[in-house]
Amino acid sequence: MQPIRAVDWSPDGDAVRIIDQRQLPATYVERDLRTLDEVCDAIRTLAVRGAPAIGVAGAMGLVVVTQGFSHEAAGAFRDRLRTAAAAIRATRPTAVNLPWAIDRMIRCADAAETPPRAMLEALRTEATAIRDEDRAMCDRIGANGLSLISDGARVLTHCNAGALATAGIGTALAPIYLAAEAGRRVEVFVDETRPLLQGSRLTAWELTRAGIAVTVIADNMAASLMRAGRIDLCIVGADRIARNGDVANKVGTYGVAVAAHHHRIPMYVAAPTSTFDPETPNGDAIEIEQRSADEVRRGFGVLTAAAAAGIHNPAFDVTPAALIAAIISDRGVHRPPYDFAPDTRPLATVVA
Amino acid sequence: MQPIRAVDWSPDGDAVRIIDQRQLPATYVERDLRTLDEVCDAIRTLAVRGAPAIGVAGAMGLVVVTQGFSHEAAGAFRDRLRTAAAAIRATRPTAVNLPWAIDRMIRCADAAETPPRAMLEALRTEATAIRDEDRAMCDRIGANGLSLISDGARVLTHCNAGALATAGIGTALAPIYLAAEAGRRVEVFVDETRPLLQGSRLTAWELTRAGIAVTVIADNMAASLMRAGRIDLCIVGADRIARNGDVANKVGTYGVAVAAHHHRIPMYVAAPTSTFDPETPNGDAIEIEQRSADEVRRGFGVLTAAAAAGIHNPAFDVTPAALIAAIISDRGVHRPPYDFAPDTRPLATVVA
Repeated sequence: MQPIRAVDWSPDGDAVRIIDQRQLPATYVERDLRTLDEVCDAIRTLAVRGAPAIGVAGAMGLVVVTQGFSHEAAGAFRDRLRTAAAAIRATRPTAVNLPWAIDRMIRCADAAETPPRAMLEALRTEATAIRDEDRAMCDRIGANGLSLISDGARVLTHCNAGALATAGIGTALAPIYLAAEAGRRVEVFVDETRPLLQGSRLTAWELTRAGIAVTVIADNMAASLMRAGRIDLCIVGADRIARNGDVANKVGTYGVAVAAHHHRIPMYVAAPTSTFDPETPNGDAIEIEQRSADEVRRGFGVLTAAAAAGIHNPAFDVTPAALIAAIISDRGVHRPPYDFAPDTRPLATVVA
Repeated sequence: MQPIRAVDWSPDGDAVRIIDQRQLPATYVERDLRTLDEVCDAIRTLAVRGAPAIGVAGAMGLVVVTQGFSHEAAGAFRDRLRTAAAAIRATRPTAVNLPWAIDRMIRCADAAETPPRAMLEALRTEATAIRDEDRAMCDRIGANGLSLISDGARVLTHCNAGALATAGIGTALAPIYLAAEAGRRVEVFVDETRPLLQGSRLTAWELTRAGIAVTVIADNMAASLMRAGRIDLCIVGADRIARNGDVANKVGTYGVAVAAHHHRIPMYVAAPTSTFDPETPNGDAIEIEQRSADEVRRGFGVLTAAAAAGIHNPAFDVTPAALIAAIISDRGVHRPPYDFAPDTRPLATVVA
């Protein structure tokens, strides 16, 4: 079976081809994005999602939406490029990858030779490099984490930090894919991950598609599975990692970490070193975004919570470093005590 | 505002009036059950739910479905009564209250004078007694737990162990109702309680209706609220309590208990002493029912988990006594070490 390509060039290279994640798991639809509206809508509505994946989609999108204008004068073309870049960047204001990738594309355009035809060629090469670096980052995380997944391992994960969130084989799921490829038996339990259900909708879909045994549970069932001795280790992704190793990730990660700690089960975080944020001393300094109440109140298209009740819906939570057995990055397996000093920030990898 | 009556006589006494819980929180509908089909359907489809409430509904239902037959000969009437009793009892095979209440009604009929008119009068009195004992049980649990809810308390609960689950003011929610009535400020956080969302659909509805501040969270958000210092105590109900104090309750209770323990937040269980099961030495001896995969996979009519993925969907989990600060019953506040010897089993209270 073909590997999943959450974001890639279309075969003719004229479009960004994505898997429309809004329609999973019911329907597998690939969508070709050609216009600025199509690129922006796809990112804004989470048709393509996951911090690494939207960085790649934004960079590639910038190429496809400007490629029809190579006949323009250089100044007009640059204006068009900047307008498109601003529009794409504005689709997801909080993700760090998207502005990072767009900035890199703009720097590339600024450094490129005119005419526009040459600039476009440089931009296409740069977007392809961003995609390839992301794939390589995933592969390295997988290789670095592989020794943690022994034959017969029963792994709990939360949310989706898989192929659907990157241009490659994912972050948290990368060691699992490589272990399965190496012939090890792996069983994955995945929290459905309310409110948006990325665990049941996306992680379960991509793992079953790869022939890996996966069992979906409601988030509130993880602790009793651990008590029953049915989980050997936990692996999750990360949205931001503070200098001291505190990890911000999808809400619910902290509860998994507390339960794993109680049952002496190792809790691993897998993320590119670009997720490390040395300027943030610890998790207390990470601001947590509150999302729409309707994600909880009407998440399934029906009213599931009393209209008069308040809703608390943070997108992320913070897991203190003390609960994390190791952090698996593209650079290696980091063990506590963590101190991600500024020089560990990579300069030439996609920020995730 | 009228107190919630999850189950009661209709004003003319000819029907069992229930709140149709399938339609909450979107629509408040009272439904009058008059026929055997109506009574059985209401219990089977969870229009009326909660172990104490269905015991009361079954007992009252037996009266209303046989009351039109007082002109029959005594033998024919008894046959009719037994047929109806068997049908009602079969609607929810695993709940302990329903057969308990039905058995009590049958014993009452056996002891009553003929003719059928006199039997019916005795049965109505018995069903009313079952309802009233359930209400009194709730009131006593509330009074016993009241001292645990101080002014300004921020309480986390899970699932629905409230008025909607009983004929009275509930079990876990009873101390909260009495504290609010006594003028204490109480703020309740409620886990939505996947997969059936009894927390967001039912607990949030009944608390907001009573003017109590309530905030719904996804189950996976409780631990981070505790870490943020926003929870003072947890109270949940129980489905069965083993002799050593291990508690079987709605799945997710154990995760709440582990997180509460980690944050040194007291975890209370509120339940009638009839929930105590002295013959079960500990939680390991409690069998946990697996429910339909579709509750997780297609909970609200949409496919939310990959069709090829396995689903683990236990209805309950077990919280070991070591994690429970106290058990609040209609007899008092029980503190560890727990030893619920056989003589604590009540003889004349509704089994819950």
